[in-house]
Amino acid sequence: MRALIFDLDGTLVDTVYAHVFAWQCAFAEADMAIDGWRIHRRIGMSGGLFTRAAGRELGHELSQQEAADLQSRHGELFRKLLPKRRPLPGAVELLKFLRSNNIVHGIATSGSRPEINASLDALEIDPGLLVVERGDVLRAKPEPDLFLACQQRLGVRVEDCYVVGDAVWDLLAARRAGMLSIGLLSGGYGEDELSQAGAFRVYRDALELYHSLDELGVLP
Amino acid sequence: MRALIFDLDGTLVDTVYAHVFAWQCAFAEADMAIDGWRIHRRIGMSGGLFTRAAGRELGHELSQQEAADLQSRHGELFRKLLPKRRPLPGAVELLKFLRSNNIVHGIATSGSRPEINASLDALEIDPGLLVVERGDVLRAKPEPDLFLACQQRLGVRVEDCYVVGDAVWDLLAARRAGMLSIGLLSGGYGEDELSQAGAFRVYRDALELYHSLDELGVLP
Repeated sequence: MRALIFDLDGTLVDTVYAHVFAWQCAFAEADMAIDGWRIHRRIGMSGGLFTRAAGRELGHELSQQEAADLQSRHGELFRKLLPKRRPLPGAVELLKFLRSNNIVHGIATSGSRPEINASLDALEIDPGLLVVERGDVLRAKPEPDLFLACQQRLGVRVEDCYVVGDAVWDLLAARRAGMLSIGLLSGGYGEDELSQAGAFRVYRDALELYHSLDELGVLP
Repeated sequence: MRALIFDLDGTLVDTVYAHVFAWQCAFAEADMAIDGWRIHRRIGMSGGLFTRAAGRELGHELSQQEAADLQSRHGELFRKLLPKRRPLPGAVELLKFLRSNNIVHGIATSGSRPEINASLDALEIDPGLLVVERGDVLRAKPEPDLFLACQQRLGVRVEDCYVVGDAVWDLLAARRAGMLSIGLLSGGYGEDELSQAGAFRVYRDALELYHSLDELGVLP
């Protein structure tokens, strides 16, 4: 029995560029300038790791308080910039299809409620859908914990899980969890970056994945 | 005598992610949803081509009026989102170095004044620096016109020009102009995307290029 474990931002909802810009503004407000592309390439890793990496680029470690302030300001700006979340093409249809065909699946995200609630609402998910979030595990991506927690709660074997994600952090975490992974271009990474990070297949977005389910061996 | 021709957005100033988000908002306001990553991969082509490509993705051609409204709304939102422009690392130093070492160089951008004025100011460019902009030529990137106009006004031979850009449109236009090109990751493309589009060398940003000028044979 194959199972699919989905990342959320950039994989199912079109939020990556608003996240990048919100981080950019949060850092700029605090007189810390970080290049957009460097932020982009770090979206999807845990917020703690992200601010630590940002500190390294800025040349001075951020204090816990600074990191917490930046994270909270990022959240505020993000909600202001993108009050309405938009599902990526095919995401809603894909989740509906998996559900009505009893194909085991869940979501595992470095995000947290309540921040992710609007995204989950936009996806019209079934209330019973398993969503593993940041607070459910000790360490977020690229550690494998989120995917392993999702797999255990889904009651499937590690080797039967496919991770679907848009960021190299998803693919690295999948590899460390012992799972196969599928990359989607909808988060703005290049195809080769995803392949090189371990994706055995790369699709444009959830819609192309939906139309390619035959290639994964997950159909009943 | 070698010459360097620079793209502006994503190459010298950190504006790509604000441009993406401004386009995303402009389209969303007009009830036209376009994925962030698809916008990102089209930044740097001419606005006219961009709206035509967007129309194709939306499934209906945009009228000239719609395209003009979207472009103007994008400009408004962009100025509001990013009132202050930030040079990318090394950009100011690189331009200063080229000038004081009499290495011929210019800027060729799909952008237009007055929108690009704040970026040029942030770069502290010399008033004498040649800036070829959208309105100076009939067709913008990926047509070669901007680079060819810059080369002619710099008074150098096509085969002596290096184009420096962050987008595949820069690299394609360079190729069509018969010029060598250098890709920078600072616009958020992946390294392989830039190499495959024809960049004979890819650097992280203007700073790494500045430290690698020996590799290009442009030093006196």
